[in-house]
Amino acid sequence: MPNRISITFLGTSSGSGPTLSRHCSSLALNLDGEIWLVDCAEGTQLRLVQADISPARVTKIFITHLHVDHVMGLVPLLTTIMFGLEPSNSKSGQRSIDLYGPVGLRQLVRITLQLTGATLAGTFSVHEFLAVQTPVASCPAPISDTRPNEGHGRDIQCDSDGKWKNFQEASGITISAAPLEHRGNSLCWVSISAPGRKLVILGDTSDASSFIGLADDASLLVHEATNAYISPRKLKSSQWDENEKEKLRAKAISRGHSTAEMAGEFAKQIRARRLYLNHFSSMYPDPAWNTDSGLRRKSKKHRERYPDDPKGSENQIMMHAIQDQATEGWSQEGSRAIAATDFMCVEIRGHEVS
Amino acid sequence: MPNRISITFLGTSSGSGPTLSRHCSSLALNLDGEIWLVDCAEGTQLRLVQADISPARVTKIFITHLHVDHVMGLVPLLTTIMFGLEPSNSKSGQRSIDLYGPVGLRQLVRITLQLTGATLAGTFSVHEFLAVQTPVASCPAPISDTRPNEGHGRDIQCDSDGKWKNFQEASGITISAAPLEHRGNSLCWVSISAPGRKLVILGDTSDASSFIGLADDASLLVHEATNAYISPRKLKSSQWDENEKEKLRAKAISRGHSTAEMAGEFAKQIRARRLYLNHFSSMYPDPAWNTDSGLRRKSKKHRERYPDDPKGSENQIMMHAIQDQATEGWSQEGSRAIAATDFMCVEIRGHEVS
Repeated sequence: MPNRISITFLGTSSGSGPTLSRHCSSLALNLDGEIWLVDCAEGTQLRLVQADISPARVTKIFITHLHVDHVMGLVPLLTTIMFGLEPSNSKSGQRSIDLYGPVGLRQLVRITLQLTGATLAGTFSVHEFLAVQTPVASCPAPISDTRPNEGHGRDIQCDSDGKWKNFQEASGITISAAPLEHRGNSLCWVSISAPGRKLVILGDTSDASSFIGLADDASLLVHEATNAYISPRKLKSSQWDENEKEKLRAKAISRGHSTAEMAGEFAKQIRARRLYLNHFSSMYPDPAWNTDSGLRRKSKKHRERYPDDPKGSENQIMMHAIQDQATEGWSQEGSRAIAATDFMCVEIRGHEVS
Repeated sequence: MPNRISITFLGTSSGSGPTLSRHCSSLALNLDGEIWLVDCAEGTQLRLVQADISPARVTKIFITHLHVDHVMGLVPLLTTIMFGLEPSNSKSGQRSIDLYGPVGLRQLVRITLQLTGATLAGTFSVHEFLAVQTPVASCPAPISDTRPNEGHGRDIQCDSDGKWKNFQEASGITISAAPLEHRGNSLCWVSISAPGRKLVILGDTSDASSFIGLADDASLLVHEATNAYISPRKLKSSQWDENEKEKLRAKAISRGHSTAEMAGEFAKQIRARRLYLNHFSSMYPDPAWNTDSGLRRKSKKHRERYPDDPKGSENQIMMHAIQDQATEGWSQEGSRAIAATDFMCVEIRGHEVS
């Protein structure tokens, strides 16, 4: 049973990124020093190093869905962790990594490694979540030593209600997954329960209600907020009438995404203790980043607009509004939603859930 | 015929990266504002934005070989350039990108797009270079409109000597390719000749002699220098005896790579006018980066070692030594090899070659 649990946001941009301040989706869960990743966008291995987390400590990677902005850093990370110039047939004493994701993941990893001629010093296993719409694995898991670096991944059948409850239980931690509404690919989420703590980390979704019950009383909920009723052109909430809000919400849902308000509403439904938002549109940069030299052009424009306050107040206004909108949907007294930034680290203390 | 030609190094690390200061391989060629890329490692799209080059200006991408550290940014870049939430059947008036690379590239791009459910607003075409060892394309190029986003790429046959001379001629620019010695995958290089200018950009290699002749009198040669007779533990050249140098050179060659000295020797063989080195081991960071906050730990260690000079002198010593070793191999009076860094930009003025 882990003593210390924390999460570090490695990428908080939606697929409209990466941007100068936000990489695409990835999040590191730190369990007493062992690292589990949720999603692994392009650039995740660099984000780990930048966050001072050794990639060698990664033992499990959960992929919420196979869209490009959630999965393309996986093979580069694998080849770095298992760096080897010769393929190895010996599996003893070497690194071993477990990958979990929807049907298609095994094929994607295997074919990419094959076509790039990658050689690994270690073993990976891909566990695929069979769903009602995708009842068969993308390709069979290897039996015995037919593939030098690939272990025998599980084909995880869903329960009669389409969920994968407690598909893994070990060291006092239980992990469950369930499908979420999102366009195109099938999608799963990860809920990790350690005694006294429950973490609910969602992938992209326009409707997470399928796991009300499983996610109830989460000590921490991470929910996407791709859209919000705020933009650089309309910086004041008073400029948004109900009709415009309704339109934006419908647009987000049509693309399989949520507004900040919807994230708050879901936090309310499951009585979450804390709510962190991620997966932001590229129109919402990290406010702290605005003064960076990489943003010279934007800064200049910004300086012209706010001559007395060159330090990113426009972005600050937007991120505050996003937090406000989620907090309003949440409507839990004394609680405030937090808009995550890359490298933000949150500790989940024990015994938060009775 | 382009008036202004420049190159910008976007990633100068070998596959032991990415590191905090160097991304893996990618290089942008700027032809009067139109961008051609050579290689496209993970993170290339972010590097483009950081270098203030709009990804939308990319029209051609040349892949030297399919190793993970040269190719994994390709699909993420494509989906950004051709961002679309719906697949488009109409090819008129939309973006179009040409990809060139060894056999396997077409399959890698196609399968990745398919498994990730990517939707593109535009067309890409993959042109594969058929070699003696790989005489058949990885999969047939689509004919007419069988695949909504994929145009009819060419299967480019090699000449009787195994090279692809002048496989493309347009707007006063001629492009040639030839195979290079490198482990595993087949490999090609790109030589671009515009009137008065000849650019020779190599992929990974331990022996580039196959295109002496084609590359002669290059105005600019970009050559890898994965290894060199210098390390943080042995900072002085006088510490390296001939036996140790020979061993390191043999090790580089056994892995399909070159030392800085070998890069210089090749520049001499083709009488290159300028020599830029790239593809450095992770032990050789960009010296300018050492003071960055991201390198806190290294800086601390460094500060202890060099209490009077905390600004990266160790890395400076190493990069100077690498340049010295290449310059010595080159042995052309008045000329000095340059170790490239990410974002370094070099203009190639017209009429350098008579």
